[in-house]
Amino acid sequence: MIKEFLEQTRERVLGGTYRTFYSSPLVVGSASGCTITDVEGAEYLDAYNNVPVIGHSSPEIAEAVNRQLLRANTHTRYLDRPVIDYADQLVSVFPDRLESVVFACSGSEANDLALRVAAHAAGRDGVIVTRHAYHGTTRSVAEISPSLVGLDEIGEHVEAIDVPGWDEPEFDAQFAAAIRQGGIRLERRGHPCGAVVLDSALTSDGIVQPRSLVATVEAIHKLGAMYIADEVQSGFGRTGSAWGFERLHVVPDLVTLGKPMANGMPMSAVIGPRDVFAAFGESQRYFNTFAGTAASAAAAGVVLSALESGALTERARSGGARLTAQLAEIIGESEVPARVRHNGLMLGVDFLDRSESNTARRRASFIVEELYRERVLVSTTGPCANVVKLRPPLTISDEELDSIARGFGVALQRLEIAERSHGE
Amino acid sequence: MIKEFLEQTRERVLGGTYRTFYSSPLVVGSASGCTITDVEGAEYLDAYNNVPVIGHSSPEIAEAVNRQLLRANTHTRYLDRPVIDYADQLVSVFPDRLESVVFACSGSEANDLALRVAAHAAGRDGVIVTRHAYHGTTRSVAEISPSLVGLDEIGEHVEAIDVPGWDEPEFDAQFAAAIRQGGIRLERRGHPCGAVVLDSALTSDGIVQPRSLVATVEAIHKLGAMYIADEVQSGFGRTGSAWGFERLHVVPDLVTLGKPMANGMPMSAVIGPRDVFAAFGESQRYFNTFAGTAASAAAAGVVLSALESGALTERARSGGARLTAQLAEIIGESEVPARVRHNGLMLGVDFLDRSESNTARRRASFIVEELYRERVLVSTTGPCANVVKLRPPLTISDEELDSIARGFGVALQRLEIAERSHGE
Repeated sequence: MIKEFLEQTRERVLGGTYRTFYSSPLVVGSASGCTITDVEGAEYLDAYNNVPVIGHSSPEIAEAVNRQLLRANTHTRYLDRPVIDYADQLVSVFPDRLESVVFACSGSEANDLALRVAAHAAGRDGVIVTRHAYHGTTRSVAEISPSLVGLDEIGEHVEAIDVPGWDEPEFDAQFAAAIRQGGIRLERRGHPCGAVVLDSALTSDGIVQPRSLVATVEAIHKLGAMYIADEVQSGFGRTGSAWGFERLHVVPDLVTLGKPMANGMPMSAVIGPRDVFAAFGESQRYFNTFAGTAASAAAAGVVLSALESGALTERARSGGARLTAQLAEIIGESEVPARVRHNGLMLGVDFLDRSESNTARRRASFIVEELYRERVLVSTTGPCANVVKLRPPLTISDEELDSIARGFGVALQRLEIAERSHGE
Repeated sequence: MIKEFLEQTRERVLGGTYRTFYSSPLVVGSASGCTITDVEGAEYLDAYNNVPVIGHSSPEIAEAVNRQLLRANTHTRYLDRPVIDYADQLVSVFPDRLESVVFACSGSEANDLALRVAAHAAGRDGVIVTRHAYHGTTRSVAEISPSLVGLDEIGEHVEAIDVPGWDEPEFDAQFAAAIRQGGIRLERRGHPCGAVVLDSALTSDGIVQPRSLVATVEAIHKLGAMYIADEVQSGFGRTGSAWGFERLHVVPDLVTLGKPMANGMPMSAVIGPRDVFAAFGESQRYFNTFAGTAASAAAAGVVLSALESGALTERARSGGARLTAQLAEIIGESEVPARVRHNGLMLGVDFLDRSESNTARRRASFIVEELYRERVLVSTTGPCANVVKLRPPLTISDEELDSIARGFGVALQRLEIAERSHGE
């Protein structure tokens, strides 16, 4: 009843740009830790949401936010200690040259600002991204997000390059070559490359983990471009390191942060060298009313302390290894061709078969729906939605990880049965 | 001591794009109602901040947010009653055709999305704005904000038109003519006009209040363009009506909301017709992780209830009239040429003298600093920062308004003395 009522009201008042997950949407009743309970009392294990990185409905977050909302929650035109202290604490977790921070509200705003800063610093507006990149929803960022708008709708100043195969031993060299070629094509079109934006876990390209980007970043710098590491999905411990780029043995020129930054309070940031921001700031003001407020900074401080304690990275490493091993074993016993890849606790189960993309997409989608029936929340990503994405809060227990694996096993068995009965 | 420490830390870790107000910045200790108390215990009367529209550190806001942060605070891929109920309540306060809402996090994001939706609906990307418009900081929105980037840096697809004199009896007819001419220039440059974006209080153009925009909006529609009302500053009762456009006897095609929407929680929205959003949504997904979360919706619900009770609009009307009358009297007794204009409780004291813009700018800046010494917070706006902007929370008392006027009187006297002693 309540579900129907909410679906109808939603249909009427929320603009037609919205999509819900699943054939029948989840109606949230409450959430705690790694569990979302629906309005009828059914408990779902959250294996999808990276935003509540220290768990849903964290009392520590609520308390930190509440204290600031009752003290003061102004903006950066005034000085306010919680915001400045947080900024100081945050930049201390980055390599030396990444010494300054500018706050924004969403990952999209952070990437939008990083593009403006890079174009100003490099004096050129061309941008290279990956073939299935997603960097956000402002117009400027949608233009560099082929997975959102399609290859035909990306900007004339944008080149989308192929990501080498994930098990390619010459990954870095091949990626570097693709960057060089993309740079030449941009130059020819009159938009020399000023920035290369890379999600450090290549999430929307299917969750790929190269071992190194040293040659790639050399190629970026040879083009005269800045390397922007999009850490909106891979940051704050997710990959087993504080930042995804650390595992790639490189230091970005600019880093963007978002999603888990404040456990759900709207907050994002661009991290970069002081001189680069100062030069931008001389020609362009940047003020963002809701960015860097005390309430958001307080929530972000709780997450940052968890990161600094090592709890998030440790859980990403050990939990990622545990779940990956279990899923690999289940897949190994199945007739369905699939492969599990992971960066810490960001896992992708790739249903391969790109030559028959509809099959892989159908299989991934079937698994998502069956896991939903098993009360485990996941979604898809990848070149043709052919990869099941698992990305639970970083407070998940071993027992909960084992439940995810069990659910996956059940879903995969059902897929086999369904395919056999259809004679496939 | 603490101020020096914070200024130094800020200088070191916050990117060089930040600007603080005043020759020596305010260091926030706490805030309550219309008062901000600095770390040394000095109390400042807040005559500037429209974000905390129902007052700083509202216990009602804190309680509403806290309840959701402890219950659930997910996203719009699931259904969650507080968000859907709020959306339903919000659109009911708009004219019939403005029946659907899409949430975002900041005014910039809302305007960025509105531009994308309008360009899609109109099939043309040209945009007309006012000469000193400010609509936000994403790249796409900065390109339509001449007051931010300068006239030379606005997009080729953008026309910035002059606003008629504020006391011009033929305001609407002249504005309509300017729209028509702007449309012709855009057409010639190969960017036919798809959207006209107007702040309903023309805030950054110096706070101007036309009596009607009926002819102007007719001209917009004749161009085949959409009329986007930017209500980020003028919305939620500020002008004495729920929305600034209501006083102009027109209905926009799209409306953008922000700043006071959730009393400081990061939240914004685009309001528009269902079919327009649906057509956009068919070709473009739009998902914004932090937009339309339960915690923000709960805070926004508190503000919306205050709006619906009539408390905000009533205070804007009576308080605006009271403060305007007092300031006009003080100005009338002064030798300094100035004029006070107001839209409800958004007041502008214009120091005129545009022929000698440096004089007007210097006078406005002097008044801002002297009011700061008198512990009243204001700032400047207008074509050459020649207008002192007053825009207190809409819970301000008559006594507090009288204090603002007294402070203004003192500041203006000091200006006269300073100018006399300099032989001006």
